[in-house]
Amino acid sequence: MSKHETSLDVVAGNGLLHRRWFLTQGAALVGAGGLGLMSARPVGAEPLTVPVWMKAPGAPMSAYGQPSKYEKDTQRVVGGTPNVIGNGVSFTPHHRLHGTITPNSLHFERHHSGVPDIDPEQHRLLLHGAVKRPLRFTVDALLRYPTVTRIQFLECSGNSGSNLASQPPQAPCGVIHGLMSCSEWTGVPLSILMDEAGADRDAGWVLAEGADAAAMSRSVPLAKIMDDAIVALYQNGERLRPENGYPMRLFLPGYEGNMSVKWLRRLKVVNAATMTRDETSHYTDVLLNGKALMFTYPMEVKSIITSPSTGLALHGPGLYEVTGLAWSGLGKIRRVEVSADGGSTWADAALSEPVLSKAFTRFRMAWRWNGGPAVLKSRAVDETGAVQPTREAFVRERGERMNYHNNAIQSWSIAAGGEVSNVYA
Amino acid sequence: MSKHETSLDVVAGNGLLHRRWFLTQGAALVGAGGLGLMSARPVGAEPLTVPVWMKAPGAPMSAYGQPSKYEKDTQRVVGGTPNVIGNGVSFTPHHRLHGTITPNSLHFERHHSGVPDIDPEQHRLLLHGAVKRPLRFTVDALLRYPTVTRIQFLECSGNSGSNLASQPPQAPCGVIHGLMSCSEWTGVPLSILMDEAGADRDAGWVLAEGADAAAMSRSVPLAKIMDDAIVALYQNGERLRPENGYPMRLFLPGYEGNMSVKWLRRLKVVNAATMTRDETSHYTDVLLNGKALMFTYPMEVKSIITSPSTGLALHGPGLYEVTGLAWSGLGKIRRVEVSADGGSTWADAALSEPVLSKAFTRFRMAWRWNGGPAVLKSRAVDETGAVQPTREAFVRERGERMNYHNNAIQSWSIAAGGEVSNVYA
Repeated sequence: MSKHETSLDVVAGNGLLHRRWFLTQGAALVGAGGLGLMSARPVGAEPLTVPVWMKAPGAPMSAYGQPSKYEKDTQRVVGGTPNVIGNGVSFTPHHRLHGTITPNSLHFERHHSGVPDIDPEQHRLLLHGAVKRPLRFTVDALLRYPTVTRIQFLECSGNSGSNLASQPPQAPCGVIHGLMSCSEWTGVPLSILMDEAGADRDAGWVLAEGADAAAMSRSVPLAKIMDDAIVALYQNGERLRPENGYPMRLFLPGYEGNMSVKWLRRLKVVNAATMTRDETSHYTDVLLNGKALMFTYPMEVKSIITSPSTGLALHGPGLYEVTGLAWSGLGKIRRVEVSADGGSTWADAALSEPVLSKAFTRFRMAWRWNGGPAVLKSRAVDETGAVQPTREAFVRERGERMNYHNNAIQSWSIAAGGEVSNVYA
Repeated sequence: MSKHETSLDVVAGNGLLHRRWFLTQGAALVGAGGLGLMSARPVGAEPLTVPVWMKAPGAPMSAYGQPSKYEKDTQRVVGGTPNVIGNGVSFTPHHRLHGTITPNSLHFERHHSGVPDIDPEQHRLLLHGAVKRPLRFTVDALLRYPTVTRIQFLECSGNSGSNLASQPPQAPCGVIHGLMSCSEWTGVPLSILMDEAGADRDAGWVLAEGADAAAMSRSVPLAKIMDDAIVALYQNGERLRPENGYPMRLFLPGYEGNMSVKWLRRLKVVNAATMTRDETSHYTDVLLNGKALMFTYPMEVKSIITSPSTGLALHGPGLYEVTGLAWSGLGKIRRVEVSADGGSTWADAALSEPVLSKAFTRFRMAWRWNGGPAVLKSRAVDETGAVQPTREAFVRERGERMNYHNNAIQSWSIAAGGEVSNVYA
């Protein structure tokens, strides 16, 4: 068996190929072109032409860059609630992105009363309640503290909620699953601030309040605050953007996004959960039997194929990269499997290194599409051993009235012509 | 010895503290506040006020976000050469950033004839020369290929060149050292495209040409192309920005930035280096004895303290975070040491995980400044064992006429009042 044939080993039904395609640097694919599997064109007799943009100097240097005008459709899709000013969401267009980092300009938004215009000179963070020394921090004071830097995802608990409707929404992947993003966050460990204030370790809870007009508030276990919570000041290298909490936000790795309170102005150490409006009227999960799950904090193991997906049609049979994102609020991704036959057979996808805890992991699978109908799925397993559930199992347990924490497997149907649609398969 | 005292162990001269400060999550710093070392203010009798931005709903969701208006000074500093249109540089403001990822809007620029306005529908990549099957790729064709994703730095070989002047420039850190940035790059391994074309492995070299008006061209060893080179299509999740080569660029991990040819339009497999204008009139290193080093590709081990640095004055004695970036074009960073006494004594800084090959590594050191004069330095060691040289040793070997590959140790002098200046110490 030649090296080439080895690279193209079929490992599961309907044309899934071995992941060594992505794992081997260098010479893994010798001869692939000879089989006409790829999509480049052999060169004919045409001479090398000089395009118009090579005939005169281009644009000058810029102080703060912007995307190409040809990429203007790579935008967040905004979903508002017209009756409540400033309440709504915007979605990260994952179907137009690749890699694992979400650019700051495209990080998803969820606001309860719009984006406040905060003067950092006037903003203060108050740390009070069951503490020996209540403290007030200016932004400049916080910028002097020891910091940590970590790449971690943020996911709204309502992400993928539209996939619980009775009919599958025919929207782009980023609109169904775009309330999740992944950034490099830099900030001050809250354990340091709590120690400086002399927080009562027996108090158990912390109320976090934002400086938006909704004074968005959530209760957070003190144990989480002391474990890996930070006051985030920088995102992907630069200071936080206004829609992500400028000048500072709480960041709780792996927890539902709403708890990472933006525009953070107050942390009060308290003896019990405060039962704020934002954790009782919202962000509570009503089950089939009418009972409600509260304080369901970690976002559980999940994966989504971002390409192919709705709107990204295939153009003719041949080799394709099937790729997507996997993550877990409980730690690292251990494994992602892909199926091209609706879940009958599965094969391991390649995971892009480094696989980081509570961060997006990019997975990739080579697929030789034969031009016929197919259903693509991905299924992630995290380091705790938790396995992403089927939609059927998820709905059986929680019902279609559930709005939050939908981590069920996504199915994309490929039609014979290459069109992709969202299906409950 | 209490836990607190342990955290504040002095490990080198002039107040450097043990890095466990940054390595321990949670309760490392119990009691630090009790010593009044930190910069928060105890809370007086003032009531919690409601700022104006909490009194009405804020701004709506946006399709593509921008920084806060209060951060408008976080910009690239542009340095042009007025006599040559489109020729110049812009610098990443590292003194205003934190973490390791550089936002796309702030990635450094180096253009030889401006930024071309390329229509991706019309752009083609030609792969020809010593190949069995010359190929022409559209952008859409390339987007279908298998990809890899990696976080890696890019550094102009002229970075830090101004520190070879006879007097140390009194400019911000980002202007002295801002021709370096670090991104998550996603693209197609060139080994796949070379194999598809049937490149002659004995040819040895590849000519890479850009589609700017300068047709910027460099020779690259075929071994590097087959090892870890990619045609980059995405940067930090989104498609390349125009100033970084939209719609595609060559990316050669660890090599001097100029070789990662932007707006890539042609790769020609050849038997010898082409000796292009861009690798003979420029990017060649004249030594003290008049001889010249050519083809000095990897950027060698280096580190820079980004804070404190010129313009970032200290405000009173007490605890500070000394932090910066370390990187090597030859692999991972093994160690970064910091000195606060001009290099007499050194201590290990904490390295932020994950430490990735050919990527920025953020280092941190806790420093109790006593309010007196001090000179801060950092010194990196990479996994090959290479140690960052002193400026004196670098100049002794290469001379002050040298413009490129300056990886010498940077010294920042702290005056008694807290002002920071650039010194050759």
